[in-house]
Amino acid sequence: MSEQSCLSVTVPEAAALLEKQAEILLLCHRYPDGDTLGSAFALCRALQHKGKKAQILCADRIPEKYRYMTDELDKEEVDATAFVCAVDVADYKLLGSKLAHYAESVDLCIDHHLSNTKYANRLLLKDCSATAMIVYEVIRALGVPFDRLMAEAVYTGIATDTGCFKYGNTDASTHRMAAEMLDLPVGVPPVRLQMINREMFDIKSRARIELERMALEGMRFEHGGKISLMPITLEMVAKSGAQEDDMDGFASLPRQIEGVMVGITLRERSDGSFKVSLRTDGAINAADICGKLGGGGHAAAAGCMLHGPLDAACQELADTVASTIPSLL
Amino acid sequence: MSEQSCLSVTVPEAAALLEKQAEILLLCHRYPDGDTLGSAFALCRALQHKGKKAQILCADRIPEKYRYMTDELDKEEVDATAFVCAVDVADYKLLGSKLAHYAESVDLCIDHHLSNTKYANRLLLKDCSATAMIVYEVIRALGVPFDRLMAEAVYTGIATDTGCFKYGNTDASTHRMAAEMLDLPVGVPPVRLQMINREMFDIKSRARIELERMALEGMRFEHGGKISLMPITLEMVAKSGAQEDDMDGFASLPRQIEGVMVGITLRERSDGSFKVSLRTDGAINAADICGKLGGGGHAAAAGCMLHGPLDAACQELADTVASTIPSLL
Repeated sequence: MSEQSCLSVTVPEAAALLEKQAEILLLCHRYPDGDTLGSAFALCRALQHKGKKAQILCADRIPEKYRYMTDELDKEEVDATAFVCAVDVADYKLLGSKLAHYAESVDLCIDHHLSNTKYANRLLLKDCSATAMIVYEVIRALGVPFDRLMAEAVYTGIATDTGCFKYGNTDASTHRMAAEMLDLPVGVPPVRLQMINREMFDIKSRARIELERMALEGMRFEHGGKISLMPITLEMVAKSGAQEDDMDGFASLPRQIEGVMVGITLRERSDGSFKVSLRTDGAINAADICGKLGGGGHAAAAGCMLHGPLDAACQELADTVASTIPSLL
Repeated sequence: MSEQSCLSVTVPEAAALLEKQAEILLLCHRYPDGDTLGSAFALCRALQHKGKKAQILCADRIPEKYRYMTDELDKEEVDATAFVCAVDVADYKLLGSKLAHYAESVDLCIDHHLSNTKYANRLLLKDCSATAMIVYEVIRALGVPFDRLMAEAVYTGIATDTGCFKYGNTDASTHRMAAEMLDLPVGVPPVRLQMINREMFDIKSRARIELERMALEGMRFEHGGKISLMPITLEMVAKSGAQEDDMDGFASLPRQIEGVMVGITLRERSDGSFKVSLRTDGAINAADICGKLGGGGHAAAAGCMLHGPLDAACQELADTVASTIPSLL
C-alpha cells in the first residue's frame, strides 16, 4: 500500500467500517506491549459482543504478565478473507516476520503514533497518550457497553504507555479516561486495579533484579556525575539469566540518579559492539549527540552503535556529549 | 483536647471557619511527605489569595525535592494568636517534638486518615486517597480559583499518596481530580507535570542506588522463593552514605520480586536489634504474622522488633510465616 492511497478516517467512519464486517482479524505489533495488546483485546471483545467473529494475532509470544487479558477472551479463528485491522502498529515492519504477509493487506490501522507510515488502506490516527484511548472511542461509537475485561484492557493500554501516568505524554484526558474505566456502572464487576498495577509496574523477575544489581555495580560517572554510563555486558546477562522481557526500561535507569543529565546504557552484542541508548530531559538534545556517532532518535531518547572495547566506547560517548553540549561541563 | 469534645465539620463549615480568620497557622506532620506539604501549600496560597496572613510550620526539615512548592510561596509570619489548622496529621504525636506545644490548641484538622485520633477542636475527615483532595474542596468552597502553584501542590499530594496512581487507594475520583489539576483554564500557566513526576517518582540519590544494590545483593529467599528477606545493616547504610530520606519505600522492594508472597526487610539498629517490616497482598495477613512476634499493623503491611543475630532473626521470621500461613508451603 503506497502512502498516497491511505485514506484518513474518523472514529465514526472506522466504527461504521467495522460494523459492516462479519469476521475481523486484529494485528498487534511484535514485542507486544500493554497498549497494542490492550487495544486489541478491548476491540476484539467489543466486536465479539456485537456478534462478530474476531481473532488477535501477534508475531511474538505474549508475555505471561498479560495473561489476565488473554486467558479470559473467547478464542475464535477467523477466515482468511476476514477484514484486517492493525492496532498500535506504526509501520508494517513492526508486524514482525511471522505476520509480514499482511503488510499489503491491512484494511484499517488504528494508531496514536504520529510517525505512522500510512501503510494501511485506511488510517484512524489521533495524537493521544495511547492507542487504547482511540479504541475506547471506537467501542463507544459501536455502542458496546464496557464490561470489566474491556475496561481492564483499555486501562492497561493507557497506564502502560504513560508509565502509570508518570511520563510527559500524560494529560487531563488520560486521567479522565482512566477515571471512566474505574467507574463502571453498578452491577458491572470493577477493574482489578491493584492486580493490574502490580503486574505491570511492580513485579520484577529475580533474573532482572540480579541484572539490575550487576549493572548498577558497573555504572560509571563522568563530568562530575552529570553523565552516567551503564554497561550491560553479555557476561552479566548470562550470569543473571535475564531474558529479553526482563530488560524493559533498563535504558531509563542511569538518568534516574540524582544529578545525572545524560543517562547512557551500553548493551554488548555478540560481535563485541555496543548498542547505545541515551536519555536526557529533551532540553539537552539526545538526537544531536547520537547523530555525531552515526545514530539518531528523538530529543529525549536516542541511540547509536559503537565498536568496543568498552572503555573506548565509554570515552567516546563522554567526549561526544562534552563536545556537543559544552555548557554541561 | 479529649476525643469527646472534637466536633466533626463539613467542607462548607471548615471553609466558613477559615473565612472568618485573619491569620492562620498551618501545621504539617513530622517527616513531611507530599500530601501533608501539598495540602499545606495549596491551602496557604489560597488563604493568602483571600488576603489573609498564612504560615506553614513543620517540625522537620522539608526535603529538597519539594522546593518547587516551597520556593515560590510568599513567606509570612503569623501572630501567636493565629487560628491553628493541621493538615494530614492523624495524631497530635505526629506533629513532632518541636510542634508538641500545639497538641492541645489545634482549632481545625483536615485529614483523610480514618485512624485520626480526634485531638483537634474541629475535624474535617473524609475517606479519600489524599488529604489534598479534601483541601481542594475547601479551596473551591472558599471560592479561590486555582493557579499553577495551588494545582501543583494538590497534584503532588494526590500523586504521592497513591504512588503515582498505582496503589490500591486510587479510584476514579483520584484520577478525576488529577485531570482537573492538569486542565487549568486558558491563561493559567499549566502544572509542570514532567518535572514533578520526575522529582517525586524517578530520581534516586547515588547513596540510595548504592544501598539498594547492597541490599539486593544480600537478599535471601525461603520456602521456594515465596518469602524474601532483605537485611539492611548499619554497615551497608554507613558504606552507602544513605540518609533517612534515601530510604523511602525500601520495605516494598522484596515483594516486587516475581513469586514473592511475603516480602520482609530487616533494618539493623544501633543496639543490634532489627526493625522488621513485612509486606503481603493483604490476603496473607501481615498483622497476624507480626502479631506472633510481638508486633502489629495492617493486613498488607505490618512490623515488629527482633533481636539479632541476623541469621536467627531471619530463621524466626521464616518459621513464623510458615506456621501462620501453612498453605504457603
